[in-house]
Amino acid sequence: MTHPRDLWAQGRPVLNAWLGIGNPFTAEIMAAQGYDAVTIDVQHGALDYSDALPMLQAMRASGVFPMARAPWREPGIVMKLLDAGAMGIICPMVSTPEQAAEFASFLRYPPRGARSFGPTRVGVAHGLANYSREANDLVLGLAMIETAEGMANLDAIAATPGIDALYIGPSDLSISLSNGRLDPGMDREEPEMIDAIKEIRASAHRAGIKACLHCASADYAARGVSWGFDLVTVSADSRLLAQAASASVARFRDLAGQGGTAPRTDARQGY
Amino acid sequence: MTHPRDLWAQGRPVLNAWLGIGNPFTAEIMAAQGYDAVTIDVQHGALDYSDALPMLQAMRASGVFPMARAPWREPGIVMKLLDAGAMGIICPMVSTPEQAAEFASFLRYPPRGARSFGPTRVGVAHGLANYSREANDLVLGLAMIETAEGMANLDAIAATPGIDALYIGPSDLSISLSNGRLDPGMDREEPEMIDAIKEIRASAHRAGIKACLHCASADYAARGVSWGFDLVTVSADSRLLAQAASASVARFRDLAGQGGTAPRTDARQGY
Amino acid sequence: MTHPRDLWAQGRPVLNAWLGIGNPFTAEIMAAQGYDAVTIDVQHGALDYSDALPMLQAMRASGVFPMARAPWREPGIVMKLLDAGAMGIICPMVSTPEQAAEFASFLRYPPRGARSFGPTRVGVAHGLANYSREANDLVLGLAMIETAEGMANLDAIAATPGIDALYIGPSDLSISLSNGRLDPGMDREEPEMIDAIKEIRASAHRAGIKACLHCASADYAARGVSWGFDLVTVSADSRLLAQAASASVARFRDLAGQGGTAPRTDARQGY
Amino acid sequence: MTHPRDLWAQGRPVLNAWLGIGNPFTAEIMAAQGYDAVTIDVQHGALDYSDALPMLQAMRASGVFPMARAPWREPGIVMKLLDAGAMGIICPMVSTPEQAAEFASFLRYPPRGARSFGPTRVGVAHGLANYSREANDLVLGLAMIETAEGMANLDAIAATPGIDALYIGPSDLSISLSNGRLDPGMDREEPEMIDAIKEIRASAHRAGIKACLHCASADYAARGVSWGFDLVTVSADSRLLAQAASASVARFRDLAGQGGTAPRTDARQGY
Amino acid sequence: MTHPRDLWAQGRPVLNAWLGIGNPFTAEIMAAQGYDAVTIDVQHGALDYSDALPMLQAMRASGVFPMARAPWREPGIVMKLLDAGAMGIICPMVSTPEQAAEFASFLRYPPRGARSFGPTRVGVAHGLANYSREANDLVLGLAMIETAEGMANLDAIAATPGIDALYIGPSDLSISLSNGRLDPGMDREEPEMIDAIKEIRASAHRAGIKACLHCASADYAARGVSWGFDLVTVSADSRLLAQAASASVARFRDLAGQGGTAPRTDARQGY
Amino acid sequence: MTHPRDLWAQGRPVLNAWLGIGNPFTAEIMAAQGYDAVTIDVQHGALDYSDALPMLQAMRASGVFPMARAPWREPGIVMKLLDAGAMGIICPMVSTPEQAAEFASFLRYPPRGARSFGPTRVGVAHGLANYSREANDLVLGLAMIETAEGMANLDAIAATPGIDALYIGPSDLSISLSNGRLDPGMDREEPEMIDAIKEIRASAHRAGIKACLHCASADYAARGVSWGFDLVTVSADSRLLAQAASASVARFRDLAGQGGTAPRTDARQGY
Repeated sequence: MTHPRDLWAQGRPVLNAWLGIGNPFTAEIMAAQGYDAVTIDVQHGALDYSDALPMLQAMRASGVFPMARAPWREPGIVMKLLDAGAMGIICPMVSTPEQAAEFASFLRYPPRGARSFGPTRVGVAHGLANYSREANDLVLGLAMIETAEGMANLDAIAATPGIDALYIGPSDLSISLSNGRLDPGMDREEPEMIDAIKEIRASAHRAGIKACLHCASADYAARGVSWGFDLVTVSADSRLLAQAASASVARFRDLAGQGGTAPRTDARQGY
Repeated sequence: MTHPRDLWAQGRPVLNAWLGIGNPFTAEIMAAQGYDAVTIDVQHGALDYSDALPMLQAMRASGVFPMARAPWREPGIVMKLLDAGAMGIICPMVSTPEQAAEFASFLRYPPRGARSFGPTRVGVAHGLANYSREANDLVLGLAMIETAEGMANLDAIAATPGIDALYIGPSDLSISLSNGRLDPGMDREEPEMIDAIKEIRASAHRAGIKACLHCASADYAARGVSWGFDLVTVSADSRLLAQAASASVARFRDLAGQGGTAPRTDARQGY
Repeated sequence: MTHPRDLWAQGRPVLNAWLGIGNPFTAEIMAAQGYDAVTIDVQHGALDYSDALPMLQAMRASGVFPMARAPWREPGIVMKLLDAGAMGIICPMVSTPEQAAEFASFLRYPPRGARSFGPTRVGVAHGLANYSREANDLVLGLAMIETAEGMANLDAIAATPGIDALYIGPSDLSISLSNGRLDPGMDREEPEMIDAIKEIRASAHRAGIKACLHCASADYAARGVSWGFDLVTVSADSRLLAQAASASVARFRDLAGQGGTAPRTDARQGY
Repeated sequence: MTHPRDLWAQGRPVLNAWLGIGNPFTAEIMAAQGYDAVTIDVQHGALDYSDALPMLQAMRASGVFPMARAPWREPGIVMKLLDAGAMGIICPMVSTPEQAAEFASFLRYPPRGARSFGPTRVGVAHGLANYSREANDLVLGLAMIETAEGMANLDAIAATPGIDALYIGPSDLSISLSNGRLDPGMDREEPEMIDAIKEIRASAHRAGIKACLHCASADYAARGVSWGFDLVTVSADSRLLAQAASASVARFRDLAGQGGTAPRTDARQGY
Repeated sequence: MTHPRDLWAQGRPVLNAWLGIGNPFTAEIMAAQGYDAVTIDVQHGALDYSDALPMLQAMRASGVFPMARAPWREPGIVMKLLDAGAMGIICPMVSTPEQAAEFASFLRYPPRGARSFGPTRVGVAHGLANYSREANDLVLGLAMIETAEGMANLDAIAATPGIDALYIGPSDLSISLSNGRLDPGMDREEPEMIDAIKEIRASAHRAGIKACLHCASADYAARGVSWGFDLVTVSADSRLLAQAASASVARFRDLAGQGGTAPRTDARQGY
Repeated sequence: MTHPRDLWAQGRPVLNAWLGIGNPFTAEIMAAQGYDAVTIDVQHGALDYSDALPMLQAMRASGVFPMARAPWREPGIVMKLLDAGAMGIICPMVSTPEQAAEFASFLRYPPRGARSFGPTRVGVAHGLANYSREANDLVLGLAMIETAEGMANLDAIAATPGIDALYIGPSDLSISLSNGRLDPGMDREEPEMIDAIKEIRASAHRAGIKACLHCASADYAARGVSWGFDLVTVSADSRLLAQAASASVARFRDLAGQGGTAPRTDARQGY
């Protein structure tokens, strides 16, 4: 397993996959495609802990860095995901430094936090003694900035001990910053949103932590890297599958003279 | 899918089914029997999110309006149920307007609430663009009145923006109002309970929202409708199955001259 | 666990439940309603081995006699169901004495059969040493008579060593005997079918084995007992649930002045 | 649900999707992309009956025509897939008319076959009375031609009553016809294989049944249609996902100046 | 089912098993080995509610007293575990009397607590009427003392109404009391830890409640009993399996002249 | 992954683990304990294909050689297990060279066999192109000798092309050779059984293939190696767990002065 810190030490950005399908086989497929990290989305994905566990097992052989997005800032599930083998946790809707500190406390054993000890599965996968000694350093805490309140508290959140990165959720951030005027979606082009995105990156770097951007397309992710982002996520498995199937159907319909019948997906209306 | 609002606009009460068995086949069976809505009970049912997801998928073809009762006023699971396709959420134990407002905030995107955007499965089922635009109106929030404290705060809860209906849980309400003197059970006949039930209905209607009643029998549900309730729930799948099997066994034992050996179920001791 | 042989020794018929829903909770509910035996339908039920295993576990505490209908006369699944804890196996479509002998061979260890030894789960549930010694006597083999060819070979099938009972499947038998003229369904009233049913019973008893009848209603099952049947099955869980829910909806619609909208189920068109 | 016969009556080819991921959410995604039919691959897919059942439920709302490939010519699983709701069965490795007849017998009730009656789930989904009356006509039987022996018996297989279509499996057919000289893979370009493919199509049409071709790409599928095929399958979900993710990674690596590190998939080496 | 109170009334300590593997068969195996109680670890075990439910069903026949450790002091999951059949709940990280009171309120119906009524599965297993009347007395609440703050509030926690026992988690307690200096692990030998363990026992007994100790080995558990503990837990299923397999491999390697290659487990580094 | 052939080339015996618990976490635990190979028992284990798939995924990272015992000599499940990633198949009850040849044909692609091509999951895990080229050599076929008829045909079975090893099932072999006089169980001490075991080994080696022995204890396995066996299996996970828990309970009961109450397991009555 290559830790993102090793890639960052080499000056390389981390390419992160996103899993919203609750299935160990799709996880194994995704983990084999060349990503540096893979995140199981326990918040918005069509899955829960009972799916995440065998997915983490199925991805272990690949050597990708396994992460999970928690459904909410709730200690029970965050610690369960760590015990199951997630090495990074992305926490949604972190809007204040108090919330950031609460989230961070779930991730490390005392005295650095309040995590409860019991790495039942991860202790098997990594060796129990190793994990016990290394977990506090291995585990990454990524706080999502996706509300106007979070924008207002950017530097305080970034400065919270135990927060290793800010992670931008463009859909919620757009809705919140525009008070519902903008539609959800990733890969934003509105100047106000690009400014916000760049401001979050700058705040993270000022605090000495990393900046991460959730993207729909590889092209936008590459722009993110050019803006200085340290980790970029490119699309979800469910979207990749839908788009590939939809494109295949459209191609066939066109070639077979049945054009115009395939359903389309609006790339902006992403999830 | 016929939305309850369309039935209410026609002056028709909504007949709601209740699912406590965690299985997509029983869900598909129930959804085929003529109910207007079906609620998956993630609180007291023998099931969790991992069951609710395929149940929602299995019921989609039926056109019934799918709802879920959340296990508690917890944002993680409430939003996951919405993303999975529940169109209404019944929240247990809403006892104050603050609790009502907190619950309501989980259900709508800003500026009407604080729901996080990511309708992964429901976006496939309903069309992502449609859902994004319509979700804030589609989704119903039903607050359960089932404590003495809730009774004391009835009008304030009913007036909370984002609460679309009050939903009566007769078992907990009886225990709480009587301070443990009354046994749990639905289809109450005590005058004090009937008064409470009618008072809740009246409070909902004064606030311009709907009133819902959880019942064990079709007969009591019809009485509920005669009292002005807008939605009535009739029995749970687990109870329907147990009662039908028990009655079948008793009938056979009687006919075969083996009477008196079948176990009975006390209709009042319901769940 | 009361063995059917103990009931038969007392001159009592066995009342058997039928499980087509693949869920341990519905199995536990059914096992609590007073049946003497419960059969998991791995042939036509919406379930397979992976469901049958936890269903057998969930029913163990009830003391009912657990059986399973195999999907076909296939040794792999028959032996797996025995190892999982089924104490009786109902085999569909036994039409010749050769098929009966092949099926019977799957059920007992040498020298009485060719079953392979490895009672992994049933050895935990019953005590391994006990099971090893008693299995050949504990296990029941029930051959389904449901084809014209099976009718023609009735006495030879009934005389096959290791066959403990003939079990009538009225739907397939009606289709086959009438060459497709009669519709499927249980609880037959056609004189030709009643004659066939009685003939099968007589053949079983001539051979010194038991006779079993699959029924939809308790009333028909009681008639079966009056005809001399030793075991009667009354309805499946899925049908009990559908009928109870449908009746509840109809009752409510009638009382609420919305009659005529509930779907009906034709009791003859059973499964 | 639009039956393939209705499309064929309009002179339209059927576009079939292929599911090798055992998950109802991926099934629901695939069923929403505009295919006419969707086949669950219970033979080579990473799934079994316990996955196929909720997948069939999740796809029901889409109206696609649901089919399944059986793992082998085994009656237990073929009939279970029909009872679960598959409307067409693709049977692998049909090499003789005797095998074709045996397979066909599993699909229809007497007197047209030897299927056992018990449409437990499909009777709920379609209405039990409707299904009982219509099943023999609704269900399609597709025999895979994928061996040299099957090629030698082509016309006899095509003429077998109850076989509705020949379905070409190019990987196995290439290995078998070349006695292992050719690598497996779809979308064959060898003249000998194109000749074989065309010969199978011609044989099917001479017998008055349909011809189907398993393809990897939409382009080859369109060629199949131009050759007269009535149904073409385009890629599997697992391949679509792997290819889309791999292409996304490669695109990002190229744009981010990290080219050459992504794994590639050889389109010929298909599954 | 023998209730711990009955054993305590006889002056017998309770021997408790610990389940971290999410599987009903391992649960059934463990429940057959002679333990008095069995606890499903929903906090650190590799399992969640969807596993706990069939595990509770599979253990019912054994008559062991079923308990669960909740993932956190969260009402939703605590009440779900009770409804599923857990008769005792172990709550992690109880550090203040306020937390103790909050936890205790989840366990009993009013007026003794705020539990919501709906014992869907446990009502089937125990008889609904019985359970409704007896649940408040049947259910045990065990508060884990595993932080320095909890040590400081020992007597106040022990005196909280509804708390039936203090339960020591030695790993977290060692980390917390030593501020991270001590490694996690059970079966502590440090004098400071033995003092703390004895102090917790004494505090529980002063308050008239029970004292419980989590152990790795039977030998340490026996010491715990000699110190006056009322319930001792001996090892987890995952650890028992790993140690037994590891010892078997080592024994074989030694005998076969391949010594030194088997991995070892440090008994102190427990989970 | 170290192939058994590589160990055999070094003159080392292969130590094989046996999995009868259907769970990926127990599989991951077992695969971490130092075994050379691990076999999932799809015949007598409490599991089926739907469990075997995630177990194979969870074990991949360990590098152990993964095998499966098929439930029977049935092509559908044998090929599915290979496609899922099993690299060796143990086939029960091979009693004639015709049965051996039939089993062997399921394992290799033409011209060496009749396996159908579609390595959906194993192609992801191993690289599709690699697997396609190497599968015929990678895969091992192990024929179980466990009947008197198999003993009589020993040399003919061993000489069957495609059979790579004979695998002794001592329980069934003892029952069959003694015509039911001997009890089932492993680690036989009867001279007649030791003679049979040695004869099977000799036959395998005469034919130039390997000899494998199923054992309960490490000590007997070491004797097997001293007799010349190439692969020995030591105990099943379910037995290891039961024995370790039982021993732990007994130890505690002894130390706590409650001796004599723990259940015992007869090592000979194994599975």
